[in-house]
Amino acid sequence: MSDIASFTDRLIVGIKEKKSILIVGLDPQFRFMPPHLVEKVSSEYGKTLEGIGHLFFEFNKEIIDAVLPFTTAVKPQMAFYEMYGMWGLWAFEQTVAYAKSKGLLIITDAKRGDGSDTANAYASGYLGTIPVFEETVASPIQSDALTIHGYIAEDCVPRFVKIAKENGTGIFVVDKTSFKPNSSIEQLKTQSGLTVWQELATLIQSWGEGSEGKAGYRNVGVVMGATYPEDATWMRKTLPNSWFLVPGYGGQGGSADEAVISVNSDGFGASVSSSRAIIYAYREGPYKNKPEQFALAAASAAEFSKKELNAALERAGKLTF
Amino acid sequence: MSDIASFTDRLIVGIKEKKSILIVGLDPQFRFMPPHLVEKVSSEYGKTLEGIGHLFFEFNKEIIDAVLPFTTAVKPQMAFYEMYGMWGLWAFEQTVAYAKSKGLLIITDAKRGDGSDTANAYASGYLGTIPVFEETVASPIQSDALTIHGYIAEDCVPRFVKIAKENGTGIFVVDKTSFKPNSSIEQLKTQSGLTVWQELATLIQSWGEGSEGKAGYRNVGVVMGATYPEDATWMRKTLPNSWFLVPGYGGQGGSADEAVISVNSDGFGASVSSSRAIIYAYREGPYKNKPEQFALAAASAAEFSKKELNAALERAGKLTF
Repeated sequence: MSDIASFTDRLIVGIKEKKSILIVGLDPQFRFMPPHLVEKVSSEYGKTLEGIGHLFFEFNKEIIDAVLPFTTAVKPQMAFYEMYGMWGLWAFEQTVAYAKSKGLLIITDAKRGDGSDTANAYASGYLGTIPVFEETVASPIQSDALTIHGYIAEDCVPRFVKIAKENGTGIFVVDKTSFKPNSSIEQLKTQSGLTVWQELATLIQSWGEGSEGKAGYRNVGVVMGATYPEDATWMRKTLPNSWFLVPGYGGQGGSADEAVISVNSDGFGASVSSSRAIIYAYREGPYKNKPEQFALAAASAAEFSKKELNAALERAGKLTF
Repeated sequence: MSDIASFTDRLIVGIKEKKSILIVGLDPQFRFMPPHLVEKVSSEYGKTLEGIGHLFFEFNKEIIDAVLPFTTAVKPQMAFYEMYGMWGLWAFEQTVAYAKSKGLLIITDAKRGDGSDTANAYASGYLGTIPVFEETVASPIQSDALTIHGYIAEDCVPRFVKIAKENGTGIFVVDKTSFKPNSSIEQLKTQSGLTVWQELATLIQSWGEGSEGKAGYRNVGVVMGATYPEDATWMRKTLPNSWFLVPGYGGQGGSADEAVISVNSDGFGASVSSSRAIIYAYREGPYKNKPEQFALAAASAAEFSKKELNAALERAGKLTF
């Protein structure tokens, strides 16, 4: 165990400071970029992949500044960076560094899943350290936590768990996503009478043993979509002290009341993620057709979400900060 | 459907030309890099991430030249590039471009899995085209095929299938990996009496409908480890005209006879992958302790593997080229 506070302990400090369980997804898509930014970067870097990298970073930087008072962490979705290759990764690295410099935690949503040496490679890059000639250093993609798949290879998740534990970082195993419908595999009943996703939850409970931070919350967490409120109740009972990453609030239709089902009675244990309802808030509502005010729109949407989630926590008798 | 030949059709052309079902995994790991290459790149680029990028590309370039007569495709494992961030991606992009220039197909082993817009983003980057300002172009990470996870989100795999079909590219859904043991989830029996991996196989069969190339082989394939020969027989019956990506031959203990179980009686339908037994052949056998001859060792190991697989095909009565 590293001497820095573990991921869940750092999250709790942030939640108390910001009084918010919201986290903001950073999913840059070219089609939603404000035209004035597109113009600015293309005049400076050309209509190139390098230009896309700068466009995404400029966009993210303004979003980060805007949502900073209302969020503890950002959740970049790797797919949107990676599809542009090295310049996409450049934007990702710059975004990670900038968000860290502002005191935000980084939960990278990459849903990696592999075994053996490959699992170690992913875990070293995102959650640990990498060899660079004689030195062992943090990768520029190093995050505070990473989403991973847990269905393959008996030793896949344990390799991520080990490296996370050694570095004070965390993982979220993808179990119930917010997508509707979930896959038919997840819904299958096994001969024990549980569904496949419930079987996975019981495995996550055993993989996470001993990963508790000082506040008692495990650094081996789970993805539990806001769009499945009944399942969230079951998941919370099964994984009482795991941290829950809750997507699907906002843009994907989960309500604040549904999202906070995953929160424990102490007010902690879950981070609720919203991406496009915040970062692309300028496309609807009062800022509609004012793309040059995208950051203001994002700040307003993040503040609204924070308050809406806190109101839901209060209704549920769970608001403690 | 694009007017270029589909992925499986291009693979078949390559197999006939090279008379080989072998594909070579490109998994660069710093600890196995030949010292003379380490010295060369660090004197030129410093002991930096950029230096690592050049090191991996130099290594891959010599490996590609060495194995070219014996293989139809290379299979880079993304984890080993991605862990170094943008300079790792740089090495990946250079490797892809170099291998393509030599006529090799690229099967990127990234095991991506997500739904909705995120699935589209991964599929656009690896298998289709991406928006770069007003233009729509191939990403520098564009590959001929990609490995993906099939357990989550009902619409995950179909999104990859759609973009692959439109672009003449292919996917391999991860089902039975070569890892021992497989995960306990995969082995669970459902109430129909099938295991979870068998349930996934039946889904892959339905997702792949209509993805056949001109030669009749589907471009929606499956990962089927060489280390599970009995399961390969079942998988072949269930997915008669899907292409199989077969890891686990060589380094991971699967024999040539086990690996070719996935090949159909026409001699096609499966590509057998070997990574470290070829690219790090200099660490064992006749080239042991001669790291400066790593390319020669790789060529020799690739030729041996090609011949060993063909001999196994002949024993099984499946050698048709």
